[in-house]
Amino acid sequence: MTDSVPGRTLGIVGGGQLGRMLGEAALPLGVETIVVDPTPDCPAVPPGAEQIVGDFDDTTAIEELAEKADVLTLEIELADPEILASVGKTTGTPIHPVPKDLRVTRDKLEEKQVLAGAGISVADFRSVESPADLEIAFEELGKPLMLKARRGGYDGRGNALLDSVEAARDSFGELSGLIAEELIDFDRELSLMGVRGQTGADTYPVAETVHEDEILRETLVPAQTDDQVLEQAEAVALDVLEMFEGRGVFGIELFEVDGEVLVNEIAPRPHNSGHYTIEGTVTSQFENHVRAVLGLPLGSTELREPTAMANLLGDGNEARKGSVSGVEDVLSMPGVHFHWYGKEEIRPLRKMGHLTASGPDLPENRTVVTDALERLHFDTEVN
Amino acid sequence: MTDSVPGRTLGIVGGGQLGRMLGEAALPLGVETIVVDPTPDCPAVPPGAEQIVGDFDDTTAIEELAEKADVLTLEIELADPEILASVGKTTGTPIHPVPKDLRVTRDKLEEKQVLAGAGISVADFRSVESPADLEIAFEELGKPLMLKARRGGYDGRGNALLDSVEAARDSFGELSGLIAEELIDFDRELSLMGVRGQTGADTYPVAETVHEDEILRETLVPAQTDDQVLEQAEAVALDVLEMFEGRGVFGIELFEVDGEVLVNEIAPRPHNSGHYTIEGTVTSQFENHVRAVLGLPLGSTELREPTAMANLLGDGNEARKGSVSGVEDVLSMPGVHFHWYGKEEIRPLRKMGHLTASGPDLPENRTVVTDALERLHFDTEVN
Repeated sequence: MTDSVPGRTLGIVGGGQLGRMLGEAALPLGVETIVVDPTPDCPAVPPGAEQIVGDFDDTTAIEELAEKADVLTLEIELADPEILASVGKTTGTPIHPVPKDLRVTRDKLEEKQVLAGAGISVADFRSVESPADLEIAFEELGKPLMLKARRGGYDGRGNALLDSVEAARDSFGELSGLIAEELIDFDRELSLMGVRGQTGADTYPVAETVHEDEILRETLVPAQTDDQVLEQAEAVALDVLEMFEGRGVFGIELFEVDGEVLVNEIAPRPHNSGHYTIEGTVTSQFENHVRAVLGLPLGSTELREPTAMANLLGDGNEARKGSVSGVEDVLSMPGVHFHWYGKEEIRPLRKMGHLTASGPDLPENRTVVTDALERLHFDTEVN
Repeated sequence: MTDSVPGRTLGIVGGGQLGRMLGEAALPLGVETIVVDPTPDCPAVPPGAEQIVGDFDDTTAIEELAEKADVLTLEIELADPEILASVGKTTGTPIHPVPKDLRVTRDKLEEKQVLAGAGISVADFRSVESPADLEIAFEELGKPLMLKARRGGYDGRGNALLDSVEAARDSFGELSGLIAEELIDFDRELSLMGVRGQTGADTYPVAETVHEDEILRETLVPAQTDDQVLEQAEAVALDVLEMFEGRGVFGIELFEVDGEVLVNEIAPRPHNSGHYTIEGTVTSQFENHVRAVLGLPLGSTELREPTAMANLLGDGNEARKGSVSGVEDVLSMPGVHFHWYGKEEIRPLRKMGHLTASGPDLPENRTVVTDALERLHFDTEVN
């Protein structure tokens, strides 16, 4: 890879909104992007990415990506670490985070085991490979338990809060490949973005996250909690980053319980709870991911101003083509930033865009984005 | 034009760095862009613009642009107001700023006449259509005079400081189509961006600009001058915006002389001296231009933090293909933002990119961008 601009090409497995915002960040740096995604004209294409149309586990497509790129990264967990490892071997193209990191984060059981093994606090958990395992988990960890598919879940899909083997069978069918976790009666959900660069790691401010139906709705930064908790969260995040070998941004989700911090989940990529960094911090999580995976120096993660972010989620009960109205009304609110992801199809609870507001008063920023969100409405396309 | 997102398409005459940054700002708003530019794969294409390859005065190309866009705008003064007016009539596509506005700003004599007619202070000037006119100008306004081609100049091209008819003949050949301006011994050069929206006008902070060889090198915001001058500059800018009928961002360049403000030139589009707004203000000049010309509400023009911007200009004596090295070194400086324009050819003094730094201490920001600039070097491509 040249150390001149232009000349660097970043290959990304996945071309959704994270790929789109990575591309937006790559442009001013003179970094070209190329993505693999099954949906033609995926959200990542408009900011200048070349697209190879293919599934996330299409070896030929990933190989073509690796041949055209200087470094590979991913923006979706569905990227297969085994395929990436083998393509990395064949083509010699570096992959960040490294496949070994992805093996950990793609499997909720392994992730928890590695975290616990590193002495990082997590909710108590059990592997569930049979109804008997689940019975034992109920006995040892109490009822109800959070049951999760070890692989393939996202945005709460594949998670269920259950109190009997029968209910678990109804939700999951066969009772194997699962992890049962103690139910945490948290005081607050926190999140922070960590970034591992070539020569060191850094963390973004601690954010408070608000979920509903296990989908992120709002991020509020800085989190309004005790300094001691903030310090602990930052220390835990740096410990988490130590677990990995590859470079890049990692989204670290935490529970705050009685002044203590537990790690919930880790995403080996930019994360929805870090979207606020575009306006809220000196260097966005997207720019720092681009810098990190290419081996460039990291930018400052400092907060510029308190910032609130609200997700614009698809509504209704079924997928359909459509658009969003009320944007003019939203833009009339001073200081609101609107981010549209360019997805053609509205689906229930699909992430369609987000809103941010920055300013000295965090509760006011929150009111602004909440009000703004209420002014947006999806219209179904009439043919 | 629909009031939903997606659905708005902005047509831009010109596809240089201003078009590129307009496209970067349009993306999150769900606004599509399409440009006319003679250079295939011009800088505006990567952030998702469709390109019609054609000259800025190619009527067929402009007509195609108008047919595909909801609103037309421009990012280069070479756009011809007569062609735009006629295309606007044929296609019914609105054009902002309106062709009448462009007729004023494209002609330095007419611009000065309209400014003076509106009671706005400008340097004393004379129309030069013959050697005799120039002789009279020397007599009445003194020597030397700033002689400028009325049309087609940019970045100081077509300007010369001269003290005799002979020297003027050497510089301009035929002595017609010129304007002679009194030489202003200014204390400071100032600039501010104004924006005219559908329902009102607004101004950005007053910036100090530093030129060398009549090309902008640095912008420092806020300008470090008397409050009285800042107020006057803002008032003058609002008067200038009143002169126009169309919507959009206008770059207003000023001289500060003995505590008074004179208008030097007006650009009917985002301007180099407003690039600092990407990081420095709540809404960038590019986003506000997109909003204004589409008739959307304007965003806040408030300064977030003092900001310094430095231009990265091409070096050497001739045009050649190449790249810039030292970017890694620049990115190791905390808080520096690098913007590459994606131009393939380096030309002497060509605008290739820019750097910004924001933070509470403006002189420190200036030191940062100046140091950063020194770390960048152009390499000629070796074939």
